[in-house]
Amino acid sequence: MAARRLVVIGGDAAGMSAASQARRLKEPDELEIVAFERGHFTSFSACGIPYWVGGTVGSRDELIARTPAEHRERGIDLRLRTEVTEIDPDGQRVRVRELAEDGSGGRERWEGYDDLVVATGARPVRPDLPGIDAPGVYGVQTLDDGQELIEGLEKAEGRRAVVVGAGYIGVEMAEALIRRGYEVTVLERAEQPMSTLDPDMGALVHEAMCRMGIETVTGAAVTEVRTGPDGRAVAVVTEGAEYPADVVVLGLGVRPETGLARAAGLPLGDSGGLLTDLSMRVRGRENIWAGGDCVEVLDLVSGRTRHIALGTHANKHGQVIGSNIGGGYATFPGVVGTAVSKVCDLEIARTGLLEAQAREVGLRYVTVTVESSSRAGYYPGARPMTVKMLAERRTGRLLGTQIVGHEGAGKRVDVAAVALTAGMTVEQMTALDLGYAPPFSPVWDPVLVAARKATARVAQG
Amino acid sequence: MAARRLVVIGGDAAGMSAASQARRLKEPDELEIVAFERGHFTSFSACGIPYWVGGTVGSRDELIARTPAEHRERGIDLRLRTEVTEIDPDGQRVRVRELAEDGSGGRERWEGYDDLVVATGARPVRPDLPGIDAPGVYGVQTLDDGQELIEGLEKAEGRRAVVVGAGYIGVEMAEALIRRGYEVTVLERAEQPMSTLDPDMGALVHEAMCRMGIETVTGAAVTEVRTGPDGRAVAVVTEGAEYPADVVVLGLGVRPETGLARAAGLPLGDSGGLLTDLSMRVRGRENIWAGGDCVEVLDLVSGRTRHIALGTHANKHGQVIGSNIGGGYATFPGVVGTAVSKVCDLEIARTGLLEAQAREVGLRYVTVTVESSSRAGYYPGARPMTVKMLAERRTGRLLGTQIVGHEGAGKRVDVAAVALTAGMTVEQMTALDLGYAPPFSPVWDPVLVAARKATARVAQG
Repeated sequence: MAARRLVVIGGDAAGMSAASQARRLKEPDELEIVAFERGHFTSFSACGIPYWVGGTVGSRDELIARTPAEHRERGIDLRLRTEVTEIDPDGQRVRVRELAEDGSGGRERWEGYDDLVVATGARPVRPDLPGIDAPGVYGVQTLDDGQELIEGLEKAEGRRAVVVGAGYIGVEMAEALIRRGYEVTVLERAEQPMSTLDPDMGALVHEAMCRMGIETVTGAAVTEVRTGPDGRAVAVVTEGAEYPADVVVLGLGVRPETGLARAAGLPLGDSGGLLTDLSMRVRGRENIWAGGDCVEVLDLVSGRTRHIALGTHANKHGQVIGSNIGGGYATFPGVVGTAVSKVCDLEIARTGLLEAQAREVGLRYVTVTVESSSRAGYYPGARPMTVKMLAERRTGRLLGTQIVGHEGAGKRVDVAAVALTAGMTVEQMTALDLGYAPPFSPVWDPVLVAARKATARVAQG
Repeated sequence: MAARRLVVIGGDAAGMSAASQARRLKEPDELEIVAFERGHFTSFSACGIPYWVGGTVGSRDELIARTPAEHRERGIDLRLRTEVTEIDPDGQRVRVRELAEDGSGGRERWEGYDDLVVATGARPVRPDLPGIDAPGVYGVQTLDDGQELIEGLEKAEGRRAVVVGAGYIGVEMAEALIRRGYEVTVLERAEQPMSTLDPDMGALVHEAMCRMGIETVTGAAVTEVRTGPDGRAVAVVTEGAEYPADVVVLGLGVRPETGLARAAGLPLGDSGGLLTDLSMRVRGRENIWAGGDCVEVLDLVSGRTRHIALGTHANKHGQVIGSNIGGGYATFPGVVGTAVSKVCDLEIARTGLLEAQAREVGLRYVTVTVESSSRAGYYPGARPMTVKMLAERRTGRLLGTQIVGHEGAGKRVDVAAVALTAGMTVEQMTALDLGYAPPFSPVWDPVLVAARKATARVAQG
């Protein structure tokens, strides 16, 4: 019997990273590690599902970073198909239930812990509309979802797909369905796709999607999924229009899965995510930790907590939690809101605040938008790139950057992400010593072009 | 007659950027701007010459960012084929000579200035060896050089090329010559190619070049260029070997062209470059400015001045000088030593200090080297990438980063360049919010993988 017992709820990125890191630091006789996972898989890449569905990635197993067997070999007592149904913080125990293959519950029992990691992830948004649960309507959150969708695509009679939602998941699924030979319509309630961008930058994505042959309808609020005589989805209905569909894919984003945490009285933020301190310890709880898609993180630019579901954050959280439980010391200071995506050959990136987010926290700002190029203009393959930059009035502090372009556009946002983290002004950025050679960049990197123009705008007051 | 007169020596990136920026800020009746250029061209991309020679860029004119006529239209009195032969700081005047087409000198005269910009650039290293000036031996510094080399390649009888020097220019020229159908041998005096990298990282470049079919001989000090009966180069001789050559290309780097400045008593640094203050004003001189390949710049990591010939710096210098002369205010705070290059599909990048450079300035450091991938491992096109990181002992401050890999490797160095500028520790870097999606990065970006490992190494003491 080990000196202490760590219980992890959730066998994906955050939970298993925490377990693995704690295991590296503590021997089994010092720390027993038990992980409960409701599903069939561990440590899979949800962000990879669109590429598997689209056939870019050959098989489901490639998306699994570490199998249950590998975790067990490393000394983690992993229990699949085991659901935690209650957290009892005062009793330092969780109630668990083993699931039968049909999902029905088995025997319940209590399991004690010394340290608890809550890594319950997120659940996809599924609006309460008629027909939303009909066969032929698919989510894309889990590997099981992906498998169902692939099977659905293969046996569908026609080749018309409707994607509901034009955020990251929506546009990535649009690309996947095009690769599968489908005609794709994307319906978005907002006035532009990619509401993670400002509307003017979203408009560039909109135009590009139309050029790719992806029908993208904005201002389209879905009211119903129409079903046929056999009960299957046959069309998506909005106010004023109806879009026939052999397949409907929901790409509406996710919300933190924190029902257990809420019931246990753990502190939640405005978007329903768990609130932690900088060491990823749940606020006010000595021995409960939380990370991944079920927490809110500090946005270093706005000073607010936000819910951002991203595998890269989840892995970092797990690393921090595991280090702290293992007797080390690590923190997760927060995020600056970086995200990058692509639809066909269009790359889309943002970091920091959008205009609306800046206004919401009382910041006044200037904006500039520049057209530049991914490489020296004379170098083959140079492609246009649009960079929008927000800087605080008077101080000139960088507040955000958005980029829409082609090859070489997306990861350029990293420069702005580091500059945001460091609290740089746009004027300081103009002197940044970025890599230059004709195949890689114009002599003024597009990010520097935007910083120069923003500097001039700030100086105008 | 204008109120003041600006004279610019050198019509390339730094000089013409300074002239253009000053022109934007001052009307012609306030400021007359005269620029003297010894050659036939202005504002051309020397960094693009290897790609023009290799046929990647179709014509010389594509490398010209702004023609003489365009500069004149913008109100700059540009005098081509006019050499400045003396600077008289006390008299606030320069002596100029108009060159005839054969390069012989014409009438000399004095031209007065209120402000002077010294942008005399750099000259290629050309060791004093027998045969080095023979026909068939080419430099690659100017557009005229490039034109001569292209003509030489077209009329050469065989297809054997020897490149002397395996730095940036050498490896880029190796790629260009391969594209021209030549068999290429690169001779490098050092133990590894790319002495801008640590030897262990240079060894990776060496291996990759060999796999590309580029014979790369290290530890090869050239002693002579052997000439044939007609006086043309026929072979390059080292201690102990001889390499037959139909064409010899010198790629040995450049030195600051500061003969005029030296003769005028202007302050020079250890590598012969002009020393300026942060506003790019020559130290101790009220109305003389300098920028581009003829100056030394402050290396923000080591605290020393260094000579780094790069178009991107030259453009920034010109912008700063022009702003200050035009009545604005701008500074060039320094560099962190970023450089990126490619040879065929291999991308090579560095920023900050090499091990030897760190030792030279008294820094003690730890190093780590990690193997990672440009994309999620399961995403098609993921390619291996090696990242080496130096961090200061005890403090953990990032000191340098070197990357060797393929598509997506080179510009990743920008993250480290910004982190260096901000003075981040490797532990701070582990939390950086870099763009993540499977087509762009593994869930832990390679730079973060290196930062994590470096953090652990620093903690070990």
